[in-house]
Amino acid sequence: MRANPSVDELVSRARDGDARAVARLISWVEDEAPQLREVMAALAPYAGHAQIVGITGSPGVGKSTSTNALVGELRKAGKRVGVLAVDPSSPFSGGALLGDRVRMQDHALDRDVYIRSMASRGHLGGLSWSTPQALRVLDAAGCDIVLVETVGVGQSEVEIAGQADTTLVLLAPGAGDGIQAAKAGILEIADIYVVNKADRDGADQLRRELRGMIALGERDADDWKPPIVKTVAHKGDGVDEVVAEIDRHFAWLAESGELEKRRTRRVRDEIETIAVTALRRRWDDVHARVELDDLAAAVVAGESDPYTAADTLLENL
Amino acid sequence: MRANPSVDELVSRARDGDARAVARLISWVEDEAPQLREVMAALAPYAGHAQIVGITGSPGVGKSTSTNALVGELRKAGKRVGVLAVDPSSPFSGGALLGDRVRMQDHALDRDVYIRSMASRGHLGGLSWSTPQALRVLDAAGCDIVLVETVGVGQSEVEIAGQADTTLVLLAPGAGDGIQAAKAGILEIADIYVVNKADRDGADQLRRELRGMIALGERDADDWKPPIVKTVAHKGDGVDEVVAEIDRHFAWLAESGELEKRRTRRVRDEIETIAVTALRRRWDDVHARVELDDLAAAVVAGESDPYTAADTLLENL
Repeated sequence: MRANPSVDELVSRARDGDARAVARLISWVEDEAPQLREVMAALAPYAGHAQIVGITGSPGVGKSTSTNALVGELRKAGKRVGVLAVDPSSPFSGGALLGDRVRMQDHALDRDVYIRSMASRGHLGGLSWSTPQALRVLDAAGCDIVLVETVGVGQSEVEIAGQADTTLVLLAPGAGDGIQAAKAGILEIADIYVVNKADRDGADQLRRELRGMIALGERDADDWKPPIVKTVAHKGDGVDEVVAEIDRHFAWLAESGELEKRRTRRVRDEIETIAVTALRRRWDDVHARVELDDLAAAVVAGESDPYTAADTLLENL
Repeated sequence: MRANPSVDELVSRARDGDARAVARLISWVEDEAPQLREVMAALAPYAGHAQIVGITGSPGVGKSTSTNALVGELRKAGKRVGVLAVDPSSPFSGGALLGDRVRMQDHALDRDVYIRSMASRGHLGGLSWSTPQALRVLDAAGCDIVLVETVGVGQSEVEIAGQADTTLVLLAPGAGDGIQAAKAGILEIADIYVVNKADRDGADQLRRELRGMIALGERDADDWKPPIVKTVAHKGDGVDEVVAEIDRHFAWLAESGELEKRRTRRVRDEIETIAVTALRRRWDDVHARVELDDLAAAVVAGESDPYTAADTLLENL
């Protein structure tokens, strides 16, 4: 057992940009450590500064390359950047996304870039429990922007996108990617479309498809109309335009009041998840502690009734 | 509003065999009335006498006719009989199974036969909440035996069978009924097989199929080996044998200790269902009472943290 630094010490070091302190705090999130309660209370006044950007898309569209390119562009603007790569399907934590980390090595030595992969399927509360808390750590640690990259497809992507202020949906030409994304329900969560690998055949065709779908979904004049940006991420083409659109979307969020709404909704979900998780844990504790068979036997013998027995269970919560 | 009799009065009248008092108590179960807690406490010392027999099988095998014939046979032996017909798919209560009631009219005027249909899908706790409590009412009201007939197929049948001491699975020749029942998982719950419509072609074939399946499932020499009884319910053929097998199974249950085990397991499930239902209800109350949006807004503003907010939710439980 190594000595545990105090919560105050860790939080203060994390706020000074100490990557190891941030890493320790996120490990606590992954491990659902009991200290989290104290950590979150200490972080509360410092959270809310970072802009949270979700990056999602099917495997093979170039998510890691795009994230890498975005980090470079954001660093040019002098921003402190966090990257949280979430892999809901992996039982491993920390080192789970080694491949991505290798690809991200452009920024591995930059102390104003914090890169972290996280995997937490199998834990009690799942991703909806851990992701917002990890984001709060990165936020309070002084990141100006945090990119949340989802690995895997389907429901988990939609779930993680719900944690972001701005969601980028990446697509690539060929193989009917637009249609597949539409089927997976991914298009509905897009604030910005990025057509990557735009130097390939079919990029314009894909953009036309997307325009058609956006037109179908339009409602009010005040609503945000998702732009479509073409990129060739490995060459850096179009990445500046993506950053410009992220800024434009963030300004719209703030001005329209949508930012407040989205963040309140997110925190609402987070509070509920924590409460339900705590309740479930207490319930399991009660099962371990109260002899349910004894309660049942008393009812069978006519010495008690099911309501009184249920009360005994609930009193132990 | 009609005047409500007191719980003590109703319970005492139900114990004297007053059908209207029994009906009122079962309506309270269906309505999840707050008085139930008091009712169940008052009934506790009188419960545990009745033998609970589940009757299940695909539509068209002759469940109602068989139940009717069984009631007649049990009445010959001087037993007080309850019939609870449960229709999980119907949103209607009380009069839901009029067709069955009409077919049961042989016994409609017999004050030692209590017939009741119940439908409770859509209520908070569902069938696993209401059925055991309705059975407890019939049990404490002095029934020697209660026949629980399930309408509908699949999971609900298995669920209701879990409430019985003895489960009859009815089958009829033709249309591969044996195979279908095997697929639906119904055969595993059978304590007694009844091949009804045994005067039709294929009855012996069906019995052979069942024997084969029983042989496959056999384990210990001490285990109960489900007998197969052939009946022609509308003529009353074989019904005496079914009653004899029910008695034999009950004697085995008592002697082997399985009766105590089954009843304890059932009551265990019942206690849990009541506790979870109460918890869910409190949770909904908290949602109605606590302004979750205010809690979330305080967290977004950095004035609180999600754990403290979750505590506020839980304190209100």
